[in-house]
Amino acid sequence: MTTLIPIDQGRLWKRHMAMAQIGALPNGGVNRPALSQGDAQSRSLLARWAEELGFSVETDPIGNLFIHRPGSDGTLPPVMAGSHLDTQPTGGKFDGAYGVLAAFEALQAIHEAGIATRHPIEVVSWTNEEGSRFQPGCSGSSAFTGAVPLEQHLEAVDRDGITARDALAAVLSTERGMPMRPLGFPVAAFLECHIEQGPKLEEAGVPVGIVTGIQGSRWFAIEVHGDEAHAGTTPRRNRRDALSAAISMVAALERLMFDEEDRVRFTVGRFEVSPGSPNTIPGRVFFTIDFRHPEASTLKRLGDQVDAVCRAHVGPCSVTITETFHSLPADFDANVIAAMRKAADLVGVRTLDLPSGALHDAKFLQEVCPSGMIFVPCEKGISHNEAENAKPEDLASGARVLAEALVILANS
Amino acid sequence: MTTLIPIDQGRLWKRHMAMAQIGALPNGGVNRPALSQGDAQSRSLLARWAEELGFSVETDPIGNLFIHRPGSDGTLPPVMAGSHLDTQPTGGKFDGAYGVLAAFEALQAIHEAGIATRHPIEVVSWTNEEGSRFQPGCSGSSAFTGAVPLEQHLEAVDRDGITARDALAAVLSTERGMPMRPLGFPVAAFLECHIEQGPKLEEAGVPVGIVTGIQGSRWFAIEVHGDEAHAGTTPRRNRRDALSAAISMVAALERLMFDEEDRVRFTVGRFEVSPGSPNTIPGRVFFTIDFRHPEASTLKRLGDQVDAVCRAHVGPCSVTITETFHSLPADFDANVIAAMRKAADLVGVRTLDLPSGALHDAKFLQEVCPSGMIFVPCEKGISHNEAENAKPEDLASGARVLAEALVILANS
Repeated sequence: MTTLIPIDQGRLWKRHMAMAQIGALPNGGVNRPALSQGDAQSRSLLARWAEELGFSVETDPIGNLFIHRPGSDGTLPPVMAGSHLDTQPTGGKFDGAYGVLAAFEALQAIHEAGIATRHPIEVVSWTNEEGSRFQPGCSGSSAFTGAVPLEQHLEAVDRDGITARDALAAVLSTERGMPMRPLGFPVAAFLECHIEQGPKLEEAGVPVGIVTGIQGSRWFAIEVHGDEAHAGTTPRRNRRDALSAAISMVAALERLMFDEEDRVRFTVGRFEVSPGSPNTIPGRVFFTIDFRHPEASTLKRLGDQVDAVCRAHVGPCSVTITETFHSLPADFDANVIAAMRKAADLVGVRTLDLPSGALHDAKFLQEVCPSGMIFVPCEKGISHNEAENAKPEDLASGARVLAEALVILANS
Repeated sequence: MTTLIPIDQGRLWKRHMAMAQIGALPNGGVNRPALSQGDAQSRSLLARWAEELGFSVETDPIGNLFIHRPGSDGTLPPVMAGSHLDTQPTGGKFDGAYGVLAAFEALQAIHEAGIATRHPIEVVSWTNEEGSRFQPGCSGSSAFTGAVPLEQHLEAVDRDGITARDALAAVLSTERGMPMRPLGFPVAAFLECHIEQGPKLEEAGVPVGIVTGIQGSRWFAIEVHGDEAHAGTTPRRNRRDALSAAISMVAALERLMFDEEDRVRFTVGRFEVSPGSPNTIPGRVFFTIDFRHPEASTLKRLGDQVDAVCRAHVGPCSVTITETFHSLPADFDANVIAAMRKAADLVGVRTLDLPSGALHDAKFLQEVCPSGMIFVPCEKGISHNEAENAKPEDLASGARVLAEALVILANS
């Protein structure tokens, strides 16, 4: 009978609670924008934990953080696991952080059990997965794999006019002496643990989900221009009301995106109106579209109509439509899925196969190396919300499967 | 033949340009929010001009500013003229400022011509007419007349969480030594000059408008609450999307408010979405409604449906609807209008009778004393916009009519 890698449930939970102190919100959530001071603090905490255990910590030109444990064969690329430490503005304690902390717990447990592996094992924290401060998200992973040019990410600007380049420079300036790797290098396999962000595992009473793939996403940025004018004196026929046009566009897009089977995911999450005075007709509206679907054909058919639908409802205003992100649906690697199943058998936990509705860094890694994801249940499927919650025992189950799978892959 | 009061067109124009330096915007406009540092500077500039001419300057508990020239009969209440110095966030150089500066020019011209009047003459600058920082607007005039309780205005909060009470205290702290009058006192008559904010005078080629009345206004604040959730994982049937509900409400309100004759003025000017992340379903939307109509019956009929229409489109979200302001249509005083006509005859300018689409401080004064308004043309009718513009000669024509009317009323 095999000895299992000794994952420490209490230690893993305590690290979640410690990490959640950084950017803590009053209602139990976390606000840790990418490349903010809080993000720098979370990196620094992780780096300190790693260095206390004797692991080396390195970064790269987009600010990804790598924690390295050598393998026995110096010529082999690492098997890697991780996720991200940035959060939504009113996010929770587990989205992203769990994937990094589970990987770090697995690394520590493997190390302390004295298990040698042929491949090196690395923990990674990818920069700006969320995309709420700088668009698009998944900056770290998509720059690493080459899917999106590094320069495009660095030129992104937040709503205070700060570029990702400057924000990254400020974070890196707090990490003087940390070795800098070049962007992108061979990876043998990538694994990412994450809370499900949906209700299926909880409803089925199953602690671990094996993720089969990720649906496709298209993001758009829409800017509507009209004319500011006096609300009390300007007749409707003389108005160029940017809000009125934008409302009409969103209503039409909702009709376009309506599907009886409820598989389309269509969200307008950001919607900004200028000048924002009650008695001035708005002269400008900026809004975003997040559209997702598991099928490439539907992603194309509906996404390709966004431009025309917006233009059809522009009225007397003008509009610019920019597609800021386009990611096709993807399936995870069969060998990695097999390794995860074998690991779950070893650990003795039940699993459920399920697709991911959310985009994750693993989607980008799958384009350059065999990749896979492990989900654990989260309370009522709630995430991107301060109320996000998960059970210590489920987090530990996911980490146990991850640790075994990492060793299987790092020895294959 | 009567000697006319010697209005100085160049001096009046120069004072507009000097005032527009305070809060100047790159495209020629002005951003001088009520009770801001800029507002304090504009008050201080006006007070300095007044004191240089030997006039006393006093304030009151809502921060209205009064410049006093005594009359020959110490028992009589003042005849008053003025407007406001605060602006929209991207406002122009003339909205409000003209009414104050025309009154001040009239006062100076009357004074320098050595014209004695039975009633005192006062110039007034009313606090927070615009209502873009603190809602509702017309704080100074409506608190002065008792239409809105002083406490309600002082408890208003701007979007940074600052109360009007604290903002006012900061302004008054820069004016130590300025005498404080009690709130509200008898006024013999009130006159307000203003740019038209509509195209009629320019189209007719007439320099002065005599305002017959002001349409009614109702303001509402709508707060929609849903649940923040992940944009990629949350099915439509499980969403409580505050933006989607708000969009549906505004679209339905636009249908309610549509009138073939285009007399309804319906504007959603402020529309704020939280948390404002592209991949999080919005949990909260706050928006304002500014609804106006010249007829009390239509104001009631349509305005009373706002609540039901919003509730009918709330979907799975919840909504709170607050009517923040309600002002019935009003006609100006026949005697004041007669004095303005007589003044225009003396000056020899053509006039046009017209109603006001915009709300003004004079609307509140009319509730407590005989009041009237003088309009002058503005370029293309544009206001609440940096492009707002007016001609020096039209501004002077309005000031000439004002000065003569003030003397007529102050000697009657």
